[in-house]
Amino acid sequence: LKVFSLNSNPELAEEIAEQVGVELGKSSVKRFSDGEIQINIEESIRGCDVFVVQSTSSPVNDHLMELLIMIDALKRASARTINIVMPYYGYARQDRKARSREPITSKLIADLLETAGADRVITLDLHAAQIQGFFDIPIDHLLGVKILSDYFEEKNLEDVVVVSPDHGGVSRARMLADRLKAPIAIIDKRRPKPNVAEVMNIVGQVEGKTAILIDDIIDTAGTITLAANAMIENGAKEVYACCTHPVLSGPAIERIDNSKIKELAVTNSIPLTEDKQSPKIKQLSVGQLIAESI
Amino acid sequence: LKVFSLNSNPELAEEIAEQVGVELGKSSVKRFSDGEIQINIEESIRGCDVFVVQSTSSPVNDHLMELLIMIDALKRASARTINIVMPYYGYARQDRKARSREPITSKLIADLLETAGADRVITLDLHAAQIQGFFDIPIDHLLGVKILSDYFEEKNLEDVVVVSPDHGGVSRARMLADRLKAPIAIIDKRRPKPNVAEVMNIVGQVEGKTAILIDDIIDTAGTITLAANAMIENGAKEVYACCTHPVLSGPAIERIDNSKIKELAVTNSIPLTEDKQSPKIKQLSVGQLIAESI
Ligand SMILES: Nc1ncnc2c1ncn2[C@@H]1O[C@H](COP(=O)(O)O)[C@@H](O)[C@H]1O
Ligand SMILES: Nc1ncnc2c1ncn2[C@@H]1O[C@H](COP(=O)(O)O)[C@@H](O)[C@H]1O
Repeated sequence: LKVFSLNSNPELAEEIAEQVGVELGKSSVKRFSDGEIQINIEESIRGCDVFVVQSTSSPVNDHLMELLIMIDALKRASARTINIVMPYYGYARQDRKARSREPITSKLIADLLETAGADRVITLDLHAAQIQGFFDIPIDHLLGVKILSDYFEEKNLEDVVVVSPDHGGVSRARMLADRLKAPIAIIDKRRPKPNVAEVMNIVGQVEGKTAILIDDIIDTAGTITLAANAMIENGAKEVYACCTHPVLSGPAIERIDNSKIKELAVTNSIPLTEDKQSPKIKQLSVGQLIAESI
Repeated sequence: LKVFSLNSNPELAEEIAEQVGVELGKSSVKRFSDGEIQINIEESIRGCDVFVVQSTSSPVNDHLMELLIMIDALKRASARTINIVMPYYGYARQDRKARSREPITSKLIADLLETAGADRVITLDLHAAQIQGFFDIPIDHLLGVKILSDYFEEKNLEDVVVVSPDHGGVSRARMLADRLKAPIAIIDKRRPKPNVAEVMNIVGQVEGKTAILIDDIIDTAGTITLAANAMIENGAKEVYACCTHPVLSGPAIERIDNSKIKELAVTNSIPLTEDKQSPKIKQLSVGQLIAESI
């Protein structure tokens, strides 16, 4: 069994290798002068079960191509099985044709991984669980909710309500609430008429409570920070938030820093690079969770 | 028949559409906040033969993903055939395992294009003609030598010798020489002993002649500028150079500007962006050549 890292999550890969009791495999990912990716695998992997750790986080196209080229190299170097550990699955939100002539990029990604030669995929909190069906190879779908709930359990918060910021996230909120033995609430956005601002109606009781907002991805942080404001306006005592995948692009950090959110718990499916630092963010590792599934 | 452009060669796509007598198809390629590609095809293409113009030039991974996602969208929008016009084929130099455990990325690219749904590929001067065999769909392999030879023919240069800067390019030099009714010469580099500088031996006669160097790709321009110096040192009167694909990365422009090359003729398989401007470079269009093959 060998574990290799590419460029998205070197620290997580190191942790996973340690947990399964091996040294990280020797390889390098460099660029030619014109920007083309050059991969060197610096030890024999013939006959091995190889695990490659790579999230397709930003820069998504570069991280994806690193992964596809690595799979090609491993296949041609006679790996026995090629197992992809992809904590964050990029392009997952393009999972259906919502409008005419849209691509379904997350299905394309599944096809590309299989074509390159992947034998199995391990991933975490897919934006839609249906993406599992886009693959014809085994896919292990892990859930980050245990890690997030352990964190909040230790905090011993009183009178908690777990809140889903939209309809799509209710079952995720239910899972966290079960573990925290708390009730749930749902933000029910609707637009009364076209061109009129959305109304944020709250289904459930938040007054006087500690609200914990949960989502799978926080990207520009618009949804989650508006939801936090709505909590306070509706009488919540304080607001925590959590998500599995801290995409945190564009104005996200500024919005979080200026929001009513007291603390945001995230996993390391995507590393918090320099431009994603905030005193409010607490990062939890999925290393052990993933190592157990290897 | 519809012609669409992505982001690599908008002007060439415009020219090809004009030559085949259609308006360029309406589409947009944008980025979501996190950098993921968002493609919109803004007119019906159901039942159409669609041509998509895109070189996988730098940024190669972004240009490739634009193309794959576009193919996916066209396929799901019921295009009759999806035809890829790829004037420059990125990753073509990774076409074999030169060392252990190397990927063969140009085969991977062929597989990815087919998996996405391409029906046919039109390309120009592949780094190795063998790449044609990496495809199971029809591939039209056009040659830029006619465009380059027409250009030099008009110049009416006297006493020309066509020079290949290495062994690999001799048949390309032969094709240009045939058209210009000129002899050829070859630069025969070899290293007399390990750790001793390479010797540039010239096979053929260049003294007193006008040398025209020809290569398929000029990337960092090391090979071509050293070859130009060798020409002058061996008594050539003046030196021209030409290539199909002006990759021109890193120190290329500086090297060309400071070299003995009088003029460099290239095609627009890769556009000369702002960082690739030099008074010595003359760009010729492959628009008509491609339009004729559509
Ligand atoms: N990277 C992205 N950033 C923002 N929105 C996206 C992204 N990818 C896809 N989408 C859009 O998000 C919507 C799907 O999100 P959801 O309704 O939460 O499943 C679709 O309309 C997509 O066009
Ligand atoms: N983008 C690139 N830039 C420079 N060298 C490359 C690139 N891609 C592949 N190569 C290397 O170029 C060599 C092949 O070039 P050639 O011998 O001219 O066919 C191989 O050793 C490759 O590893």
